[in-house]
Amino acid sequence: MIHPIPPGTRDVLPDEMRELRRLQASLLGVFETFGYSEVRTPTVEYADVVSRGDEDLAGDAYRFFDDRGELLALRTDMTIPIARLVATRFGEVEPPWRLSYVANSYRAVTPQRARLREFGQAGIELIGVDGPDCIAEVVEILARSLDAVGLEKAVIGLGDADLWAALVRDFGGSEQTVGATSRRLAAHDMVGLGADLEECGEFAAARIETMLSLVQRRGGPDVLADCRGRGGERFESVLDRLEATCEAVSARDVGERIQLDMGMLRDLGYYTGPVLEVYDPSVGEAIGGGGRYDGLMERFGVDQPAAGFSLYLEPIHKAQLEQNGKAGSGVSDA
Amino acid sequence: MIHPIPPGTRDVLPDEMRELRRLQASLLGVFETFGYSEVRTPTVEYADVVSRGDEDLAGDAYRFFDDRGELLALRTDMTIPIARLVATRFGEVEPPWRLSYVANSYRAVTPQRARLREFGQAGIELIGVDGPDCIAEVVEILARSLDAVGLEKAVIGLGDADLWAALVRDFGGSEQTVGATSRRLAAHDMVGLGADLEECGEFAAARIETMLSLVQRRGGPDVLADCRGRGGERFESVLDRLEATCEAVSARDVGERIQLDMGMLRDLGYYTGPVLEVYDPSVGEAIGGGGRYDGLMERFGVDQPAAGFSLYLEPIHKAQLEQNGKAGSGVSDA
Repeated sequence: MIHPIPPGTRDVLPDEMRELRRLQASLLGVFETFGYSEVRTPTVEYADVVSRGDEDLAGDAYRFFDDRGELLALRTDMTIPIARLVATRFGEVEPPWRLSYVANSYRAVTPQRARLREFGQAGIELIGVDGPDCIAEVVEILARSLDAVGLEKAVIGLGDADLWAALVRDFGGSEQTVGATSRRLAAHDMVGLGADLEECGEFAAARIETMLSLVQRRGGPDVLADCRGRGGERFESVLDRLEATCEAVSARDVGERIQLDMGMLRDLGYYTGPVLEVYDPSVGEAIGGGGRYDGLMERFGVDQPAAGFSLYLEPIHKAQLEQNGKAGSGVSDA
Repeated sequence: MIHPIPPGTRDVLPDEMRELRRLQASLLGVFETFGYSEVRTPTVEYADVVSRGDEDLAGDAYRFFDDRGELLALRTDMTIPIARLVATRFGEVEPPWRLSYVANSYRAVTPQRARLREFGQAGIELIGVDGPDCIAEVVEILARSLDAVGLEKAVIGLGDADLWAALVRDFGGSEQTVGATSRRLAAHDMVGLGADLEECGEFAAARIETMLSLVQRRGGPDVLADCRGRGGERFESVLDRLEATCEAVSARDVGERIQLDMGMLRDLGYYTGPVLEVYDPSVGEAIGGGGRYDGLMERFGVDQPAAGFSLYLEPIHKAQLEQNGKAGSGVSDA
């Protein structure tokens, strides 16, 4: 007898469960080695905590009222709840705070077919370390985590969330154009981006060409040199920061995993500064992401720099299976 | 800055998290030793799956509509989802099936102050073994689990979910009285139970006295002998089954943990036959429960005997702390 489960959810049977537990233990082991301690937060938060973290994200949450008429939400990620927890509970503890988690999060919408609505994430948050060292530590642990789970070919894309906005402003674009085109870029919609740049009437054709060309540059440190002098003052200043980030990361001997990505813009609104996205050649979707999010901490009343990453457990497990020549996906698509 | 979390939920900070991970690993280790494999099910189920398992329980669930207008529910326990999973996915696998889980479940109501609405459970389900051996295997693993987490003084209460109904029927009580008084007994409400028995007008005073006295008997195997001949045919027949259960359990060398409880009636409606409840002298609430639930499997279309137990992680952790002389509870009571 078939009893269906909601779309985007799955049952995990014993063989896979053993592999997921092993994956989880490997990652927690790496986090522990670097001094990161695991925390857990409620699955159910007040909806305004999620909105405070990211207004767009809150719209994607499973939301419902409790018995007192308060609007609740299933957590949409772990970074927002940890920001809330740190703000509420860590006032008396001297920073930096190094925290980790392995937990499921939830989105009530399925942007793509076969995407999960309940998904596992393992990650860290480093709060209270300033300068390029903050993201460099995060990238180092990310690289070691990828080693630990056997994904030698996985690539860490590194960009800066402010790069695009700086370029648009340098070229005289309005704030409205910054917002609209950022959404296009975050969605990797190059055609839409080009159309928006033309339609707004704020840029000459040659500049549009430059902008579209710049955001598609990816590669090693020479990409930075290649971009120099192509934007204006704001763009140069973000390039300086990105260069400092690259140097700090390279000093930690994980430079070979890094691929600079001048068009990277994470779709979570809370990133400020360096951003990360992790890809493995064997799966078509991102297997992790992260970045610097000082602004998020501020929204919860914590005046501390912060950065972190999150690895997506199901795509990572899929990548491991692909490497071992096994197939399979148990996502309910009903 | 304080950002509250919903009542009955908690943040778990690093020290406690380490202890909870250790607790979880101990229990999964015991389950594995006995050949039980872990499975995971979605946090969010269709609400009618929960109702099919237990109508009353479904009323306690966090429920909400998804984007297609389907009514969803956060799972209220793991036994119902595993019954659903087994019915759906295990048709081609020869029973018996030995499954385990460590997972959080959810209730939208707080029956008592400081009770959790999100709570951790670790347990097993044995499906497809008939006779007293089924519950005896479950009790053995339960006893070894309590050993593994260091709760040497914990007691496993053993009763039979059919005992009370048999007694009421033997004495000529109506089905309505069976239902009403069972709810009183499940709630340990002896005053209400006495009042109900009197008010229904179906029993002579001496019989009411016998009934109230019988359900309050607890202790070793002599309790059984003591109850013999005090009810009628149905009652004797359930006593036979309970005696067979006791013998099968004692044969596994865990008899010293067992306390017979003639008034035990689990408030989950899906139990049929032997029922279990676990107590530790250092905490005031049950730290686990379980029993035989053939009827639940049947509701999902699986014609197999089944039994299992669930250990409640937060009270067990509290009991461990009490033993080590540490206090503390981080439950949000806001």
